Amino acid sequence: MLYLVGLGLHDEKDVTVRGMEAIKGSERVYLEAYTSILGVGKERLDAFYGKDIVVADRDMVEMDSDEILRDADKVDVAFLVVGDPFGATTHADLLLRADALSIPYTVIHNASVMNAVGALGLALYNYGQTVSIPFFTDSWRPDSWLERVRENMRLGLHTLCLLDIKVKEQSEENLARGRKIYEPPRYMSVPTAISQLLSLLEDSSPSASSDSSPSLASADSLDPSTTLAISASRVGAPSQRFVAGTLAELSELDEEAFGGPLHSFVIVGRRFHALERDFAGRWAVDRERWNEVSNTVYAVRD
Amino acid sequence: MLYLVGLGLHDEKDVTVRGMEAIKGSERVYLEAYTSILGVGKERLDAFYGKDIVVADRDMVEMDSDEILRDADKVDVAFLVVGDPFGATTHADLLLRADALSIPYTVIHNASVMNAVGALGLALYNYGQTVSIPFFTDSWRPDSWLERVRENMRLGLHTLCLLDIKVKEQSEENLARGRKIYEPPRYMSVPTAISQLLSLLEDSSPSASSDSSPSLASADSLDPSTTLAISASRVGAPSQRFVAGTLAELSELDEEAFGGPLHSFVIVGRRFHALERDFAGRWAVDRERWNEVSNTVYAVRD
Repeated sequence: MLYLVGLGLHDEKDVTVRGMEAIKGSERVYLEAYTSILGVGKERLDAFYGKDIVVADRDMVEMDSDEILRDADKVDVAFLVVGDPFGATTHADLLLRADALSIPYTVIHNASVMNAVGALGLALYNYGQTVSIPFFTDSWRPDSWLERVRENMRLGLHTLCLLDIKVKEQSEENLARGRKIYEPPRYMSVPTAISQLLSLLEDSSPSASSDSSPSLASADSLDPSTTLAISASRVGAPSQRFVAGTLAELSELDEEAFGGPLHSFVIVGRRFHALERDFAGRWAVDRERWNEVSNTVYAVRD
Repeated sequence: MLYLVGLGLHDEKDVTVRGMEAIKGSERVYLEAYTSILGVGKERLDAFYGKDIVVADRDMVEMDSDEILRDADKVDVAFLVVGDPFGATTHADLLLRADALSIPYTVIHNASVMNAVGALGLALYNYGQTVSIPFFTDSWRPDSWLERVRENMRLGLHTLCLLDIKVKEQSEENLARGRKIYEPPRYMSVPTAISQLLSLLEDSSPSASSDSSPSLASADSLDPSTTLAISASRVGAPSQRFVAGTLAELSELDEEAFGGPLHSFVIVGRRFHALERDFAGRWAVDRERWNEVSNTVYAVRD
């Protein structure tokens, strides 16, 4: 049996009891280590689960899945994924290959940021599509995610923005020369993400900074001074931190205000209610401003 | 400390290790029992966690939260929620009241159907807003959710449809007479949900059954013979079952094809890819038809 086990959000104790039993009973245990990270290292997992876990990078999962699946029709093998096994990527490839080899599989679910973001207090029903914000490079400023945010905003929906993770990336030179030398991991912070967002907004609308009446702004204008957002750092960890404010307010904070990775944030849509305003208002940079924008621009009624 | 503990999807072993520690260390343990159900009864939880859990219905949580929060500034109290604590409802009310009483709280997340639906193989990034389909009554056919499905479809997004649960409901007569006599619980099945959907579509479009070319249908037409859907029953349980097909195909199956509650289903949007088609195709009522609709109407390219 192949067990796909979600590890949840933070450390070795976020696995489910069912998941831990599957890990302890497995002959080999792999940890998928390229779409997210836990707040603790592999050693903590090894000690707690009593296993010597093999860290599987993208190359291994995509190119060497036969090794992962070896004998899994006879013995139990566990494949661990941070969050839920179907969160950042579906691993459908691996499961279809298991199927083709007549290897049965069982999925053991867990929390992922996709549902744990509910802790911000905004009803999960009112979220639209989730977007992933990639790092800008010198020559490439990807912006397709911004149109998806606007699509959500037009419907009054919130947008969960997940931020880029670069793990085991090679520099162009090392890639060209076939040298397996990797850059240090990079995790996008909320200030970086918002500054990229603001720079795209400036590109698309030279009058974005005009002082037109905020309450008349169209739903998808994303005016930084009247668009509310809530950041969520290290969701599910003891050091979890939420910060609420306008995009402009969040962009002015330095990285320390959010702490270490992983960061994500939510852009608040118009389907926003008084209880949600009050719940998230506890994390506001400036509560008065938070309430004012909520009540005027977002038309929240008590 | 007040612990809000997600129990996950199916039984007593779906709690996380962290969650179980919090439950075992708590002086009082409540189970929120009105927005979802586990696949097992309270007795199994009592035995496994070593606690006599108090089942809290909506009245208790909303009207008598002071009892739940009593002394939680001095002792630990656990409030258990099926799935994730912020899944079906945010419990923001309870947490704000805890705050007002200076009671600290900790959330222990878990899987909910909102993220575990990823097991169908469709990328979670391409889901729009989630809808909840309520039971029709003799005098009321709520349809606002249908417009939300259409909003998603126009953007090419998938829609997770959660189905109504009626627990501890009173008949109109018993309600009027103030008699605390409750109807047996009712859980909407996929065939009921789809028949309600099809009847609303007939209302709104008398020509819905015309034989116009399916590939020319607009993105939000929801033509039953060319709109793909995947049902998900008892997600996360050993008896979990997925069924894929057109809305028309799923509507023709009887309830046994889906098994017992809880049921949900996903209406597939146009952001649908070959790997997803092949992954979900394994559960197709008629795989040839599944592939044909995927390739022609949904324009899936290999």
